[in-house]
Amino acid sequence: MIRPIINNVSVDCVIFGFDNTSLNVLLTKRELTDPESGEILLQDYTMQGHHVLEDENLDDAAKRVLKDKTGLENIFLKQFHTFGDTDRLLKEKDQLWIKTKFPMVLNHVITVAYYSLVDSAKIKPDQQHLDTKWFPVNELPALGFDHERIIMMALDYLRDEIRREPIGFELLPEKFTLTQLQNLYEVILNTSLDRRNFRKKVAHMKYVIPLDEKQKGVAHKPAQVFIFSRDVYDRTKKEKLDFSI
Amino acid sequence: MIRPIINNVSVDCVIFGFDNTSLNVLLTKRELTDPESGEILLQDYTMQGHHVLEDENLDDAAKRVLKDKTGLENIFLKQFHTFGDTDRLLKEKDQLWIKTKFPMVLNHVITVAYYSLVDSAKIKPDQQHLDTKWFPVNELPALGFDHERIIMMALDYLRDEIRREPIGFELLPEKFTLTQLQNLYEVILNTSLDRRNFRKKVAHMKYVIPLDEKQKGVAHKPAQVFIFSRDVYDRTKKEKLDFSI
Repeated sequence: MIRPIINNVSVDCVIFGFDNTSLNVLLTKRELTDPESGEILLQDYTMQGHHVLEDENLDDAAKRVLKDKTGLENIFLKQFHTFGDTDRLLKEKDQLWIKTKFPMVLNHVITVAYYSLVDSAKIKPDQQHLDTKWFPVNELPALGFDHERIIMMALDYLRDEIRREPIGFELLPEKFTLTQLQNLYEVILNTSLDRRNFRKKVAHMKYVIPLDEKQKGVAHKPAQVFIFSRDVYDRTKKEKLDFSI
Repeated sequence: MIRPIINNVSVDCVIFGFDNTSLNVLLTKRELTDPESGEILLQDYTMQGHHVLEDENLDDAAKRVLKDKTGLENIFLKQFHTFGDTDRLLKEKDQLWIKTKFPMVLNHVITVAYYSLVDSAKIKPDQQHLDTKWFPVNELPALGFDHERIIMMALDYLRDEIRREPIGFELLPEKFTLTQLQNLYEVILNTSLDRRNFRKKVAHMKYVIPLDEKQKGVAHKPAQVFIFSRDVYDRTKKEKLDFSI
């Protein structure tokens, strides 16, 4: 059964992954070549997105895009902003792309943007589309449409959220070391944290549980591994009523 | 010149106002009567909203709605979430309303929701549409569509934001007393704050400036008045790099 699309509304997903040294975004290559000369007319990257279907809720559209592009289900996904500037598809290269590939698309498309957090090791090469790859957020390639703006805003939301909610764990493997956890915070917040203070802080987090188990596959001094429990977090968090402005 | 609308995308504004005792939302009455019998078929309230125009940015659509409904410009306005469930217009009373009044409207309309903060004294009766009035957020009337859900989510965002950014001042007159400011925080956060601690905290806020001036129009013991300076806030705020999870 063909499910018709809403041709002026889309969802886009900023998929963040962490590889222990950088925070990355999953992007898909966009390329146009001249059918006669073979000359490359356009080559850049875009995020994963698609039009919303007529009988589809927004969140379901975002989940569908994620599953199509990464094979993953039930991963962290949060709507953060909707972009609808009238000029967002009007750059010359974007118009060339649309007119060649998607002549039915309108010039004013409103996109509901989500960001997603994944353990990048979970996206195995064979699950990736051929031209999809990770880029560090601070070394983005040329991007289509307003996708650079969308990614930068997603990063602002992520930085804000990670200071208040334990969402960083979504970017780590199930079992992680404290060094990995510290790296994650340092990379996302773009700062360096004192190792001793960091460990003291984590020791007070009842929801970061040490296991009687060490890291595997490392040559020297394997470190202790930990798991994060959302159950424990939800049941022990204190409502902060105070305002900190 | 008629500017055509995008018939499946709208903006809705949750307009919050504060009257020193409660946090209120501005709502407009929606009523349908049977043209023959005069019987009331439908009576409830909705937020202020309208379709986005084809040549209009989303933020401009929200500003236009605010200006049309309140006469106000340049007031605090923030996009917080987009609602696009396929069933959001399908309740029987909403279908009756749409089919009677707006037969061109589709069944799947995506609405980009904003919240706005105003000093409610600024909305004078003559600027209000006849059937527009303030309701306390904890005593909302029957509402159309998914507007109750939208208002409740706006309230969550407001409560979250007011603990981190000095946006509460938008709800107060330019000159306010510390009692007014404390009331505001108590009402929005739904808690009571210790008066001495509150004043100590405010004394550390360089951007809350005491004036050599007292309240006017009160019978006894007029209190000192203060102003909020965003300029001072922006130039003195400290980046909180630490995470508090």
